[in-house]
Amino acid sequence: MEDQFRTEIGDLGEFGLIDHLTKNNETVQAGTILSVGDDAAVIDQFGRQLVVSSDMLIEGVHFDLMYTPLKHLGYKAVAVNLSDICAMFATPTHITVNIGISNRFSVEALSEFYDGVYAACAKYNVDLVGGDTSTSLKGFIISITAIGEVVPGKFVTRSGAQENDLICVSGDLGGAYLGLQLLEREKKIYMEHQGVQPDLQNQGYLLGKILKPEPRVDIVEWLQDNNITPTAMIDISDGLSSELLHICNKSEVGCILYEAKIPVSEEAKLLGMQFNIPTVTCALSGGEDYELLFTIKQEDYEKVARNSNITVIGYITPIEQGANMLTPSGKIHKLIAQGWNAFG
Amino acid sequence: MEDQFRTEIGDLGEFGLIDHLTKNNETVQAGTILSVGDDAAVIDQFGRQLVVSSDMLIEGVHFDLMYTPLKHLGYKAVAVNLSDICAMFATPTHITVNIGISNRFSVEALSEFYDGVYAACAKYNVDLVGGDTSTSLKGFIISITAIGEVVPGKFVTRSGAQENDLICVSGDLGGAYLGLQLLEREKKIYMEHQGVQPDLQNQGYLLGKILKPEPRVDIVEWLQDNNITPTAMIDISDGLSSELLHICNKSEVGCILYEAKIPVSEEAKLLGMQFNIPTVTCALSGGEDYELLFTIKQEDYEKVARNSNITVIGYITPIEQGANMLTPSGKIHKLIAQGWNAFG
Repeated sequence: MEDQFRTEIGDLGEFGLIDHLTKNNETVQAGTILSVGDDAAVIDQFGRQLVVSSDMLIEGVHFDLMYTPLKHLGYKAVAVNLSDICAMFATPTHITVNIGISNRFSVEALSEFYDGVYAACAKYNVDLVGGDTSTSLKGFIISITAIGEVVPGKFVTRSGAQENDLICVSGDLGGAYLGLQLLEREKKIYMEHQGVQPDLQNQGYLLGKILKPEPRVDIVEWLQDNNITPTAMIDISDGLSSELLHICNKSEVGCILYEAKIPVSEEAKLLGMQFNIPTVTCALSGGEDYELLFTIKQEDYEKVARNSNITVIGYITPIEQGANMLTPSGKIHKLIAQGWNAFG
Repeated sequence: MEDQFRTEIGDLGEFGLIDHLTKNNETVQAGTILSVGDDAAVIDQFGRQLVVSSDMLIEGVHFDLMYTPLKHLGYKAVAVNLSDICAMFATPTHITVNIGISNRFSVEALSEFYDGVYAACAKYNVDLVGGDTSTSLKGFIISITAIGEVVPGKFVTRSGAQENDLICVSGDLGGAYLGLQLLEREKKIYMEHQGVQPDLQNQGYLLGKILKPEPRVDIVEWLQDNNITPTAMIDISDGLSSELLHICNKSEVGCILYEAKIPVSEEAKLLGMQFNIPTVTCALSGGEDYELLFTIKQEDYEKVARNSNITVIGYITPIEQGANMLTPSGKIHKLIAQGWNAFG
């Protein structure tokens, strides 16, 4: 694509580039009063409270363009920010996207990235309402701010978990980390033996987990529809242990996590065996699953048990008992944070 | 500072670093329901409309750390984003700050940057409510999202200027560009003759214009207090010509700009002579002044004339007449955009 049709960014200029990238930008939110094209966007939340979260993704730190298609990158950059809004028990409505790019990127490459951004916006009814494009001296830099709305006072923080609450998680865990190992292995083989085609057959599920994560807007909606309000909630970007410890620390409680209950997919189990990495390690420390981790009152157990996308994996204890994991053989391990850490 | 007391960022870890940088973060806005420390912040705008704008600043592209003190950089990064909110005729209330930093920065250096961020927040009653810190492979990267509020429907865009409206500008123009030339000159001398101390005496005003611009919240408040609603408004980040052309294009009108009316400071005139650059050129094409450019109905002229911080510099014409500047000698020049362009 880049070789056949390459338009230099300098040919369009900054304003031309923004026009090009936003010319098909359609808004769907009734609250979008003014979108891209002025000094700022204007949004009406119609009496709801505003939820706002912002993240930066840097090439070579957070993603590797050797195995990340630009369209997937655009989709994922939006998805991980929407995931933060979901983790507040709120509904994402708007985003702004700032990017920094070096001149090694063509307009066509950028358009692919924006195709992914727009695909995520379309899927989740989110409007892109602002942002800018800058030159970067090195690599591709993305900074996204996500905005959402919540009925006043109905947001859920990390700090409300109480003794005896049940710990729940959506979907399955560890898949994103294994998907990443697969991509890293194939990259290494490719670097050492140029021309060898990557062997990624039948790995669509795990590759999807790392390359195209989905924010669990569906879980938030299902909980709201079923009148279940979590007592605490967080999304899993760093790994289950690290996130559960955040909830314990902020809520000033302990926990028991049942290792055997942690949901992992069959695909993850198979690949974990190939790589000789226990899937539970991937779930606890792998990160990037973007599932929701939350606590509920015991009285909501029956309702939650009906949803096959939610698994109860433990319960909250008094703070004195600490944060622990019970293994299938009955041993107790102290939970420690070993999630991804860009500074680690 | 960095040499005497240097704490490595890795010593604190990502979460430790965020805690360190936000430990003294106090919020003042009644609408700040939840600030830093969860998946997202929660804001109540109490029925007002939300205004949102986002910008990325990249070392080596938008700023040079050789002559930009980190505290000034933090202040300016906030100020230029608040300026966009002002340009919507709105009041800034909240910001999120994402930064990417390489390990050449110490915790102390970052704290200086945040001192500047907090100083700007304190001056303008704005709450810092989120953001993150990442590793960057090269240089310092800043991405700020500013949020503001406006009475529903009372925001001002670039597109409302009408025939016979008067064109107004706040403060004086061209100073930031001349301040930058001064810094660039001293940097060059310093690079060529190590040890020569920069000669920046008596240049505080122009250096302040480039290093510590102020968003014109005061002008927005004054206009609101005096029941003047501009018909169109934009802030001057790129240069007067470029911004006035934005208003003309979006409003589908032409204009006459009186060259002799463009406000320039005595300091700018003096330094312009030294550098042999006409101050009018600095005002038209220099950029980074962050003054407000706006149009008003003729009936508001008398009120505006009372404010010495606002200058009427021309008027709006039908689109067929184009965008023109009238020189003191009576010549007509077509206005062309020559503002800063990071891709130029």
